[in-house]
Amino acid sequence: MSIQLKLTLPDWLSAYLEDGPRFYETPAARMSLAIELAARNVLANTGGPFGAAVFDQRSGLLAGVGVNLVMASGLSLAHAEMLAISIAQQRLGQINLGADGGRWQLVSSAEPCSMCLGGIHWSGVKSVLLSARDEDVRAIGFDEGNKPPNWETALQSMGVNVTRDMLRAESCAVLQAYAQRGGIIYNAGKLGAR
Amino acid sequence: MSIQLKLTLPDWLSAYLEDGPRFYETPAARMSLAIELAARNVLANTGGPFGAAVFDQRSGLLAGVGVNLVMASGLSLAHAEMLAISIAQQRLGQINLGADGGRWQLVSSAEPCSMCLGGIHWSGVKSVLLSARDEDVRAIGFDEGNKPPNWETALQSMGVNVTRDMLRAESCAVLQAYAQRGGIIYNAGKLGAR
Repeated sequence: MSIQLKLTLPDWLSAYLEDGPRFYETPAARMSLAIELAARNVLANTGGPFGAAVFDQRSGLLAGVGVNLVMASGLSLAHAEMLAISIAQQRLGQINLGADGGRWQLVSSAEPCSMCLGGIHWSGVKSVLLSARDEDVRAIGFDEGNKPPNWETALQSMGVNVTRDMLRAESCAVLQAYAQRGGIIYNAGKLGAR
Repeated sequence: MSIQLKLTLPDWLSAYLEDGPRFYETPAARMSLAIELAARNVLANTGGPFGAAVFDQRSGLLAGVGVNLVMASGLSLAHAEMLAISIAQQRLGQINLGADGGRWQLVSSAEPCSMCLGGIHWSGVKSVLLSARDEDVRAIGFDEGNKPPNWETALQSMGVNVTRDMLRAESCAVLQAYAQRGGIIYNAGKLGAR
């Protein structure tokens, strides 16, 4: 018997990829989608206030989606960026999202935590759009882990284009809504036996 | 239709968990297992020269196993530590591996890359045993990403016990064997369209 690691996206999230191809032509439209995913994740009670997606930079084709599913899946790796990257890799049959002249772009409603920062490195993506800042995420209580202070320039020195603060107020509004609903801030080592 | 992220362990690896409970009582026995997994992964051609496992610190019960399955799975997150942590969380039904007085221990045949370092943070484990050094892994060509220079003390300040250099020569021998076989060094952004 083979052991499988299984992670199922909620139906509402799967629909973005299953209901025919969707295109998001402008950077703002792509970030709006990432923030929309974060907001829907909060409303649907499927997890933390974070959303991410992978797009073809040229056509705007949506190739991967992710939200924070840590509590729903029981897996601490189930962050929005990790899922969006993995779903895109699985659907495209391609590990290196930086192939074809850096074709694929990761868009996230918040700056990456320590794990997702490394996940971005390994995915090979050459373009990253980010919204809420690390400090915004920490302000509602999440512990993002120990990140290299030079993370932005380090990504840039690897040839990754980084754009920050896109629609930051909109993403912060979702973070605030989550905090006000009393959403779980499931920090590392701070949960009970689940 | 729900989209699933799927990752299947090779049969030889699943057997460690499926063939009844196994116990590894000493730290050296646990590290020997992690290195054995790395070596078998190389011989079985299932991936890179890295192995990891999660144990109950008290009884030595094996709760999770992982090897590098990046090429086999097509997912860049499929590192040994990420899988060992995830499989343990899935089997135990418990996200926080630091619960019960820091019960679960992660043992890895090599020091964590930038992604796994964050993965360790989020798993909540309070004890980590490591073998080959970051520099040993880079010496055969892997780009481990941009890690905070103070990663060891940062983990310790979060209450994580870190033991390094355990059976380092044995783990390095596996790294060397992989390099000599011409194993793929699939660095970020350096693969073709797969």
